[in-house]
Amino acid sequence: MTCLRLSAVERAQLAMMLEVTAFPKPGNVDRCHDYPETRLEHFLASTIFARPALEEAELGKGRLGEIIKHAVRDTNCHAGGNTHFGAFILLIPLVYGKTIEGAMAAIANTESSDAVAFYKAFAMTAVKMNATDDLDVNDPHTLTLIRERDMNLLDIMQHSAANDMVAREWVTGFPLSRRGADLLKENGPGRDSIVRTFLTLLAMEPDTFIAKKHGMEVARETMMAARDVLDGKRSIEDLDEECIRRNINPGSIADITIAAIFLALGEGWSWDS
Amino acid sequence: MTCLRLSAVERAQLAMMLEVTAFPKPGNVDRCHDYPETRLEHFLASTIFARPALEEAELGKGRLGEIIKHAVRDTNCHAGGNTHFGAFILLIPLVYGKTIEGAMAAIANTESSDAVAFYKAFAMTAVKMNATDDLDVNDPHTLTLIRERDMNLLDIMQHSAANDMVAREWVTGFPLSRRGADLLKENGPGRDSIVRTFLTLLAMEPDTFIAKKHGMEVARETMMAARDVLDGKRSIEDLDEECIRRNINPGSIADITIAAIFLALGEGWSWDS
Repeated sequence: MTCLRLSAVERAQLAMMLEVTAFPKPGNVDRCHDYPETRLEHFLASTIFARPALEEAELGKGRLGEIIKHAVRDTNCHAGGNTHFGAFILLIPLVYGKTIEGAMAAIANTESSDAVAFYKAFAMTAVKMNATDDLDVNDPHTLTLIRERDMNLLDIMQHSAANDMVAREWVTGFPLSRRGADLLKENGPGRDSIVRTFLTLLAMEPDTFIAKKHGMEVARETMMAARDVLDGKRSIEDLDEECIRRNINPGSIADITIAAIFLALGEGWSWDS
Repeated sequence: MTCLRLSAVERAQLAMMLEVTAFPKPGNVDRCHDYPETRLEHFLASTIFARPALEEAELGKGRLGEIIKHAVRDTNCHAGGNTHFGAFILLIPLVYGKTIEGAMAAIANTESSDAVAFYKAFAMTAVKMNATDDLDVNDPHTLTLIRERDMNLLDIMQHSAANDMVAREWVTGFPLSRRGADLLKENGPGRDSIVRTFLTLLAMEPDTFIAKKHGMEVARETMMAARDVLDGKRSIEDLDEECIRRNINPGSIADITIAAIFLALGEGWSWDS
């Protein structure tokens, strides 16, 4: 069997596919569990439709904000709502820059036009960001503020970083994505490694997607419950069941896991055990 | 939500993804069931890796045999074995020709070079074709015969058509793929429609992939069992369980279902219910 090295685009798509199909993942869509509005097939369709924007990123030309907007626009073609917005925030700069260092350089080079494009992408999704601050995505005044203050896309992410672990990766240099990639390589090849890595990340950091929906207390509670699973005090199926029942979705840990898989695939980690 | 019309490439990839994720499908890999050697993730990786060859086909240039060979080569990059060889035999000409009529015209225009390329693709897979005839893929003499007789790719398919319902589609004008597309549109949108269509096709024709592995008697038996499910005499889960236990895989009906989904998506059928 001859196998050329995977391209960055293929690694990104594989990462999206492998993360969503890995199971069991407490509280999230996977092979064995859909939500009424959002199903596995929506995530997989999004993986297919993301191709052109990922190819733009791979060329390393064009503007990061525009490319993210294209990814969101092209993957909005189904009824499943926001599937990969957070994943694109991580994947697009990583594909563009080829490494974390390259991603950070591209991020530093963004301008207010990127911030404007990003907000337009944001408005296409139903994602709630900080509802209480002055950068409200639905307020046209926001775009004026962005231009007046000459905020680039890094400034935008900085603005949300306290409450959004995905945005925080842009500010801090992708440490959680890096950690996840290292965990995958330690945990071995294949699906079980993805599940263990997801759970380990969940046990280390409160998921800010949970915090936004349910408050930080529930996010911490979920983190400690993941630790209990890793310590053998509780089954993963039991935690999955509770998260589903209470609609607790570790969506940001999922996004970080996608970025981790992307990095690990480029460093020799095998998805195919 | 703005949605541009799906391209032929996207329809082909969606078709591959939707077919494999539909469940329950008696005896085949789906969301709830893997085989030890071949898992859902292999089929989904193949869907991603097929993109360049499908894009070649969409351009409508190049040679059908070469494009099929590229599709097989690019999707061989995993340990799951042959996942989509039959699906490519159907999808590549349909994407290339844009319609069944266009596909048949392209098929008629193939030459011995396409047949040679096809046999080289074939040799990359572990698929058994007719072991008893004189066109043995592992026999280098075969390629000499093909050139001497100036057989084109249609001639090759004609040679296998009696025992292979996928090859037969090339000879007879894709009637089963057409029937499947019509069934999908009758059965309504979404996953349940795919399952019902798969079952209906299975109940109408003995699956030649089953026949090659287990003999025509078992293929007919499976066809009649599918009819029992449609008639309410038996549950689909029960048939699925028996097929898994006996390693009965309706692989060619799956390939035809993929082609049917591809056609139906281009005719207004909605996958997203």
